[in-house]
Amino acid sequence: MTLTCVGIGPGGGDDMTLRARTALEAAELIVGYTTYVKLVQKDFPHKEYLATGMRGEVERCRMALERAAEGKRVAVICSGDPGIYGMAGLLLELAPEYPGVEVEVIPGVTAANGGAAILGAPLMHDWCSISLSDLMTPWEVIERRLTAAAQADFCIALYNPSSRGRQDYLQRACDVLLKARSPKTVCGCVRNVGREGEERRVLTLEELRDAQADMLTCVFVGNSQTCVVNGRMVTPRGYRLGDS
Amino acid sequence: MTLTCVGIGPGGGDDMTLRARTALEAAELIVGYTTYVKLVQKDFPHKEYLATGMRGEVERCRMALERAAEGKRVAVICSGDPGIYGMAGLLLELAPEYPGVEVEVIPGVTAANGGAAILGAPLMHDWCSISLSDLMTPWEVIERRLTAAAQADFCIALYNPSSRGRQDYLQRACDVLLKARSPKTVCGCVRNVGREGEERRVLTLEELRDAQADMLTCVFVGNSQTCVVNGRMVTPRGYRLGDS
Repeated sequence: MTLTCVGIGPGGGDDMTLRARTALEAAELIVGYTTYVKLVQKDFPHKEYLATGMRGEVERCRMALERAAEGKRVAVICSGDPGIYGMAGLLLELAPEYPGVEVEVIPGVTAANGGAAILGAPLMHDWCSISLSDLMTPWEVIERRLTAAAQADFCIALYNPSSRGRQDYLQRACDVLLKARSPKTVCGCVRNVGREGEERRVLTLEELRDAQADMLTCVFVGNSQTCVVNGRMVTPRGYRLGDS
Repeated sequence: MTLTCVGIGPGGGDDMTLRARTALEAAELIVGYTTYVKLVQKDFPHKEYLATGMRGEVERCRMALERAAEGKRVAVICSGDPGIYGMAGLLLELAPEYPGVEVEVIPGVTAANGGAAILGAPLMHDWCSISLSDLMTPWEVIERRLTAAAQADFCIALYNPSSRGRQDYLQRACDVLLKARSPKTVCGCVRNVGREGEERRVLTLEELRDAQADMLTCVFVGNSQTCVVNGRMVTPRGYRLGDS
């Protein structure tokens, strides 16, 4: 039995691929975090759903694998792409305990790519994706990665810039970046990518340090070449514009 | 007039989002690199097309913007995501020369996310995207980024690992990575992501050094925790599997 792990894109709906939609149509049971189940239920109202809260990831994946082992056609949904801070890895790690269950990963548009499109083109050159959540990663590792990304002039997408228990993590991250980057570095924030209440803001790194960002915000830090063109955040790839 | 810059996903077709499909349906003229035009023409046979070869990027974007300024509904297509080594940045940089033309970026599944799904879940933790093409980026900058990514234990997706003029770039990149990473680091290659002839291979970093990779291959280098589970490449996020 194949269990599909389906990326629904940043906001579900129009940002879902046809392959994702087909997988959800074929599923009997759709399993996911409550917020994402709500995004999908509008389009697929007649499915069986199993919704669990945050931090119930291992339990949620085991329930899905158990039901698949019983012969049910199960889809586990993830916001964005299941392979970027999603459930694909956990399902693949647990799958050997459920003989006969194959896990198929169906990619989606990740929040960094969805948010980048709204801001302009901040990730046009080499870039890093860093999560500021220290629930499972020591802060020292996160700080080492921020330092490396800043020193090697990567563009950066920051996931999980804040949460209830961690109000100052974005500020701490900016302080690390400011050791190697100009305070005028062009940055951007997008809140509610692809969902109701979508907001974007272009600002400098020193302004970002004092900005508010909740866990629904994706944050972008430009490289040394990133600029603002007609209000959009753009990182040049290096084309000579007079070439034509 | 709005010009749309549309990500068609790694192979077009089923990996395209509904938003991308709607944008192509609405377009009168579709502009793109010859290979991508062929991928889209199957689904939209009755559109006007303008296809140009590689390295004609600035000219292609200017032609598209000119036609949009004349009042034509134009879509510029990119493989994967237009904001990841695609045309979004160049169009936004050039747009101010074409008053009245607004550029809308429609995100897609990028090759790194599409390829990762085929291999398993190699990018489940913090990761970097690095292009090995030195057409517009000095090799010293690429090498500095490879070193930083290796030292800070990022997972890495390598774009453009090789081309006709650069046969040994993947080997040189592996030599840089091997200074900071174990030769047993789990790596993966996917060729023709989402297209006919799709191939995947899981191997070690020392094997990758001597592997063949052409410009249609996406290469993945794991972090120190990346492992092989049932033949799939998986980077653990850090969940304790007995938590349930």
